[in-house]
Formats: sequence, structure tokens, C-alpha cells
Amino acid sequence: MELLKERIRRDGKVKEGNVLKVDSFLNHQIDIALLNEIGKEFKRLFSKEKITKIITIEASGIAIACIAAQYFGVPVVFAKKTESKNIDGDIYTSKIMSYTHGNEYTAMLEKRFVSPNDRILILDDFLATGKAQRGLLDIARQSGASVAGIGIVIEKGFQGGGDRLRAEGYNLQSLAIIDRMENGVVTFREESPQE
Amino acid sequence: MELLKERIRRDGKVKEGNVLKVDSFLNHQIDIALLNEIGKEFKRLFSKEKITKIITIEASGIAIACIAAQYFGVPVVFAKKTESKNIDGDIYTSKIMSYTHGNEYTAMLEKRFVSPNDRILILDDFLATGKAQRGLLDIARQSGASVAGIGIVIEKGFQGGGDRLRAEGYNLQSLAIIDRMENGVVTFREESPQE
Repeated sequence: MELLKERIRRDGKVKEGNVLKVDSFLNHQIDIALLNEIGKEFKRLFSKEKITKIITIEASGIAIACIAAQYFGVPVVFAKKTESKNIDGDIYTSKIMSYTHGNEYTAMLEKRFVSPNDRILILDDFLATGKAQRGLLDIARQSGASVAGIGIVIEKGFQGGGDRLRAEGYNLQSLAIIDRMENGVVTFREESPQE
Repeated sequence: MELLKERIRRDGKVKEGNVLKVDSFLNHQIDIALLNEIGKEFKRLFSKEKITKIITIEASGIAIACIAAQYFGVPVVFAKKTESKNIDGDIYTSKIMSYTHGNEYTAMLEKRFVSPNDRILILDDFLATGKAQRGLLDIARQSGASVAGIGIVIEKGFQGGGDRLRAEGYNLQSLAIIDRMENGVVTFREESPQE
């Protein structure tokens, strides 16, 4: 998605440890006009799929999921992150190791909000090693829902998590795939699937 | 807002300890069509104000802020919650006591995203004692931005936080104000400001 890549080139900041800061437009301050274009692009990419629900995980995934959901006409369910232990039986849980924060947390989602009749689309802002996405896939598996696709705004291609999911057969579409971040310069993968 | 009140009566669940669960449509699963009506209503209520930015706090406030922002044509900035201590000087922080979780957390917001030229609208899903809103007001005060208003989806009127903010002169508009929750029955305040 060229508009997004231009914005990353212009306003993204590469920090120590392969961190890309896009907090001026994506995950702290949010440019809603850009998010609308992102939502439309996800709808175009998954237009052939009969999506019944969009699933994401708090916090920054919520913005993308809600704006995109308008183009799909379906509800959003966001998994909550918690370190709490007293979780009752009406909740699907999956343990996720956070690359960014270096800790483990539990994603939870109430069982009544996903059923075997659902065809879900997983949306998120970032994919690096794919741990968060695998947590949501694990919850989908427990629920019996089918996974129609995974839509990611920015994939850190060099961390390999996206290509592993593709190799397993998931319909993963990322709007910008970064292959390298060297000396503050971001290099995008040429053959992004949607172009 | 009658549509919202009807939805609370139909799908809201009153739990022990004055807890109102609206997680089937507002803060776990999200009904995007309802959120669009909520966004339009906030625009109607604050139509005379020259809003430059919508401020909220993660996580569930993000959905409301982003959908509403489409009607205002302004960016969203969401304050992050953290218990971390190593926060650098480029961030506004405010300590907030959580009524729901019984702990204290720090709301943080990068300084470059709010300036004295901003007229901000604070949006959130719930207001009870008003602690979270006061944290955002504290951040606004530090930044020098002016507060054009506070928009709340559901105010627990019986906890008094909303009326205290009104008494201090804030333009606080709540789409549904609950005066009582007894035996599982929700009673709304009659003279909601917007009706």
C-alpha cells in the first residue's frame, strides 16, 4: 500500500533494537484518514471472504479493527491482555510471549463472542515474530471458528513470523513488509502480495 | 441517547459491586453500527466547539474515540497505561487510581502530540468516580491545551464523579446517565443534558 509506505518513510523513526516507531500516525496518535484508507484496503484484499467477525488484541489493534469493520459490516471482538490468574471457565485464553516488553501475558476472550459458525479476520498493527497472531489463532482453534485471513498493517519481514504463517497456509496480507532497517533507512519488500 | 439506553436495558448485565457489563456491544465485542451513532451524537453535542484533537485512554476508549473522530475530522491521541517507572522527560504523566482494578497506574502521553494550540475533546466509555478523566485533564493542564469538553458513553451518576466535574465548569456530556442499579434494573436519569 503505497500511501502507507510513504507515510512510514516520512514519519517512521527507526530506533535501537529493530524498533520502528510509528506513534505519530498509527499507535499513539492516530491519523483517522489514513486508517480509513487502511480499512478500505483490507476490505479489498479480503473481499472474496465471507467474514462474520473481526478479531484483534488490545490496545492499538482496536483502532484498526474498528475503522476496518465499517467496510465489512461486522462486529469487532478484541482479546484482552491480563496477567491475572483467576480467569473463569467461560473464557478462551492463550499465553503470549511479548517481544516488545519481554514478558508473558495471557490473551483472553469470552467464549460467547466467537462460535464455530464464525469466519474470522484477524487484524493487527504489527507482526514481527508472530506471537500475538498465534495467540489469536490458538483462541480461534479452541472456539472452532474458521480463520478467513490475517491482515497486518506493518510486517517486519526480517523477523520471519509472517513467512512462517504463510508457509502454514494462512491467507496473511500485510500492507507494508519491511525487509531491512539499516542506518535508520527502511527497505520494503518489493513483491508485496497486494501489489 | 435513546438507542443507547435501549441497548443497555436489553443487553447490559448488572453484577455485584455496582458493575454494569456492556461487553457484548461496547467494550469487548463492539457493535460498530452503534458506535457510529454514538460518534454522530458526540459531534452533534460538541458541534459548536472547534475541536483539534480527541484524547482518550487505552483500551476501550480507543474504539469510541476513533469512530467519533471521523465526524470531527481530527486525529486521536490515546494515553497509555503503564506501571513502568522509567519514563523519560518527553512524556506527560498522571497517576490514576483505578476503581475497577483497585490499583494505581500511570497514564502517559508524548508531549509532542498535545500543544497549547490544541482544543481537545476527552472521550471515554465509562465515567464513575471520574479518576481516569481527571488524569486526562491533568495531562491537558500540563500541556497548556484547552479542554473543549468531555464526552462519556455511560456515566454512573450515582457515583458522583460526573456531577463534580460539571460543578467545576466542564462541559461534560454523557449519552446515558445511570442513577440507580437495583435488583438488576438500571434506572436512567431523566434530565440527561442532550434531551
